[in-house]
Amino acid sequence: MKWDGLFASRMGHMKRSTIREILKLTAQPDVISFAGGLPAPELFPTERVEEATSTALAERGQEALQYSTTEGMPELRELIAQRMSDGDLQIGPDNIVLVSGSQQALDLVCRVFLDEDDAMVIENPSYLGMLMAARPYGVRFVPIRTDQDGVVVDDLEPLLEENPKMVYVVPDFQNPQGTTLSLERRRQLVEATSGRPLVIVEDNPYGELRYSGEAHPPLLHLEARHRGSTAVDGNVVYISTFSKTLAPGMRLGWIVAHEEIIDKIVQAKQSADLHTSTFAQFVTYETARDSFLDEHVARLREVYRQRRDIMLEAMGEYFPPEVRWQKPDGGLFLMVYMPEHIDSHELLKKALERKVAFVPGTDFHLDGSGRNTFRLNFSNARPEMITEGIRRLGELLQEEVRRE
Amino acid sequence: MKWDGLFASRMGHMKRSTIREILKLTAQPDVISFAGGLPAPELFPTERVEEATSTALAERGQEALQYSTTEGMPELRELIAQRMSDGDLQIGPDNIVLVSGSQQALDLVCRVFLDEDDAMVIENPSYLGMLMAARPYGVRFVPIRTDQDGVVVDDLEPLLEENPKMVYVVPDFQNPQGTTLSLERRRQLVEATSGRPLVIVEDNPYGELRYSGEAHPPLLHLEARHRGSTAVDGNVVYISTFSKTLAPGMRLGWIVAHEEIIDKIVQAKQSADLHTSTFAQFVTYETARDSFLDEHVARLREVYRQRRDIMLEAMGEYFPPEVRWQKPDGGLFLMVYMPEHIDSHELLKKALERKVAFVPGTDFHLDGSGRNTFRLNFSNARPEMITEGIRRLGELLQEEVRRE
Repeated sequence: MKWDGLFASRMGHMKRSTIREILKLTAQPDVISFAGGLPAPELFPTERVEEATSTALAERGQEALQYSTTEGMPELRELIAQRMSDGDLQIGPDNIVLVSGSQQALDLVCRVFLDEDDAMVIENPSYLGMLMAARPYGVRFVPIRTDQDGVVVDDLEPLLEENPKMVYVVPDFQNPQGTTLSLERRRQLVEATSGRPLVIVEDNPYGELRYSGEAHPPLLHLEARHRGSTAVDGNVVYISTFSKTLAPGMRLGWIVAHEEIIDKIVQAKQSADLHTSTFAQFVTYETARDSFLDEHVARLREVYRQRRDIMLEAMGEYFPPEVRWQKPDGGLFLMVYMPEHIDSHELLKKALERKVAFVPGTDFHLDGSGRNTFRLNFSNARPEMITEGIRRLGELLQEEVRRE
Repeated sequence: MKWDGLFASRMGHMKRSTIREILKLTAQPDVISFAGGLPAPELFPTERVEEATSTALAERGQEALQYSTTEGMPELRELIAQRMSDGDLQIGPDNIVLVSGSQQALDLVCRVFLDEDDAMVIENPSYLGMLMAARPYGVRFVPIRTDQDGVVVDDLEPLLEENPKMVYVVPDFQNPQGTTLSLERRRQLVEATSGRPLVIVEDNPYGELRYSGEAHPPLLHLEARHRGSTAVDGNVVYISTFSKTLAPGMRLGWIVAHEEIIDKIVQAKQSADLHTSTFAQFVTYETARDSFLDEHVARLREVYRQRRDIMLEAMGEYFPPEVRWQKPDGGLFLMVYMPEHIDSHELLKKALERKVAFVPGTDFHLDGSGRNTFRLNFSNARPEMITEGIRRLGELLQEEVRRE
C-alpha cells in the first residue's frame, strides 16, 4: 500500500518541528540544554495543583469530569478578563475563548482567517509555532524586518500592498530574539493598520515575565485607545497562555477578541476538539484564583531574572568579543549573533559533543538568513548549569571565531 | 469594521453544532433530557481521579506539568496497546497517538487525508462530530444506506466509483441509531475495500459498553486477519476515547494506525496543539492502570444496561404502536422512527413544553431525510427520570399519531 498518494496536499507544507527533533537530540541527561523553551520544572506549583484538584473534585467533581461548553469555564474566563482589564479597556468573558494551549490559538486563528495563498506579515525571525500553524493553510508569509525595538514598522507600508489578512507579532520578549516592541512602534503599528481589512494577531505568552524596564500596554489596549473605545471591538486578536506562568502541561491558553471573531473561533474549535479539557480548566481555575497566580508569577520573575543575569554575566566572561547579543527585559530567550562565517547548525554538532545545546537560528527565519545566529533559553537550567554550559559554549566559540 | 469579508471561505462550510444549541435549550434543570450524549456523572470515578492526581504529582509532578511529546505518554499508549491487542493482532505503542478527545481524532484524520472536494463514504445517518470535522475541509459526502445491521455494504460498489479517500463507520452501537455492524457485513466491508486507495476510519467510542449479544472484532483486526497479517499495517484508522469509559472532561482519545499514517497525524497534531494535556494523560494513566478501567467499565455496563432496559420497557408501555425502535446492544443511544407525518423538530417544541427533550433526527442525515426520527440517550438520566420522561413523551406521541 502506497500511502503517499492518499495524503492531503497540505501535508506537503508540513514538516516535523525541527526544534522538537533537536530537543530529542538534546534530551540526553548529561547535556546542558539551552535549546527548549521549557519553564523551570522545580518551580511548578505541584502542591497547589494537588490541593486545587482535590477542591475541584470535592466541590464540583461531576462538572469537572463532564463535557462542557466550547467557550470554556465562565469563572476562568472572568478571572482572565479581570486580570487583563484596566481603566482604559474593559474585557468581558464573552471576549474570551479558552483553548488547548496557545498553539491551538494560532491554529484556530489561521483556520478562521486564512484561505490558500492569503498573506501574513510576520516578523523575521519569528516564532516557529506560528510558522507550523500557518503553513498547512497555504499561507503566503510576508516577512518584515526587526531590530532591537522589534518590528520595523517603517517597513510596513509597502508590505500592506500585498493585502495581508493578518499581521502577526510577539511584542513582549519575542521568541526567538528576546526583543520588545517599543511603545512608539506599538502606536505606529496600530495607526498604520487602523481601518484596514486585516487583523493584528498579538501573541503574548511572556508579557507577565518582565525582569527589567517598563511594561508597555498590549496592542489590544492601544488599538482601542486609538479609536477612543473602552471595549474589545477592534482588529486585534490577542493570544496568551498559562504555559509560562503556571504549567505548560495543562495546555491551557486563551484568545481575546471582538465577539464576532470569538463566535467564529468557537465554531472552528467545536469542529477541532469540541472543547478544552474541563478537568484542566477546573484545576487551573482553582490553582490560579485568590491571587495565587500573581504571587506565583512574582516568584517566577525573581528566579528567571536571576538566571537571565547569570547567563548574561557568563556570556560576558566566556564569549569572544566577536559575538554579540542583546539583554532581554523578560521572557525566556535571547539570541546570539556570531560572525558571518560561523554556521550555527555546524556549531550545534560540535556543541553536542561538548554536552551543551541551543537552537540554530535559521529555522526561525523566513528568508534563509540567520545562519550565524542561535537562540538560548535561560529559564530551564539551574544557575550552576547555566554558568557551566555557557563556559563550554564560550570555549567552542573562541575556537570557531579564530577559525576564519 | 466588516468582519465577514475577512473570514476564510471554509467558515462558510461551518455551522455551530445544532446539538450543542439544542443542549442549551434543554439545560433547564426541570427538563428531563434524553438529548445529550452525556455519561452518567454520578458514576465518574472522582475519588480514584483524586488519588491518581496525588500519585502522579507526588511521583512525577515535574513531568506531569511540563511540555511533552506529541505522540503522548508512552505508558498510556502501552496500556491502550495491550488492552486492544489479541492473539490475531499485535498493536504497539508506535501505532498509537494520543489526542485531545475523539473529536480531535476526526479533525486530524480529515486534515491528513482530505483535499477540497475529496469524497468520504459515510453512513446515513451518521455521527454529527464527523460532519462537523469534515465540512471545513470541503469534503464531498457520499452517503451510504444503513439498516438494522449497520452499513448496507452491498450498496458500496457503485459508490466506490466516486473514488472516496475515506469510508467512515461507527460499527458498534452507532450514534445516532444504536445499531451494530454485523460480523458478516464487517468481513464484506473489509473485502470490498481491500487493496483500494482509501482508508476505513473506524470510530469506536462505545465498543466496550456492550450490554447484550456477542462482541464482534473491530474492522482493524478483521482487516489484518484478511491479509494474514498480525501487525497494524493495513488501511484501517481506528479511533477511540476515554470519554465514555472514564470521563469526557479529560478530553483524551487515541488513534491506532499504520506507523506511516501515525507519523503524518503527529505532524498535523504538532501544528494543531503541540500535544494533549500532559496532566490529563498522567492522571488518566494513574486512574486507568492496575485493571481499574476494566472494573469501572464493568460497573458502567451494569448501570447502563439497566437504564437501557428501563427505557425500552417504558417505551413499550407508553409509546403508541405506530412508533418503532430497535433495541441497541450497547452504547448510549437508540433511534425512534415515527409515522411520516410527524416532524421531529415540531415535536421537540411541544416536548420542551412538557419538560422532556431529545435530538431531532434530521441533523444526522445527509440527504434531508429523517424528519420523522429522533435520538434518545439512555445513559445520562436516572432510572425514575427515564420512566417519567418516556411517559411524557409517550403522551405527546399518542396525541401526534392521532393528529394525522
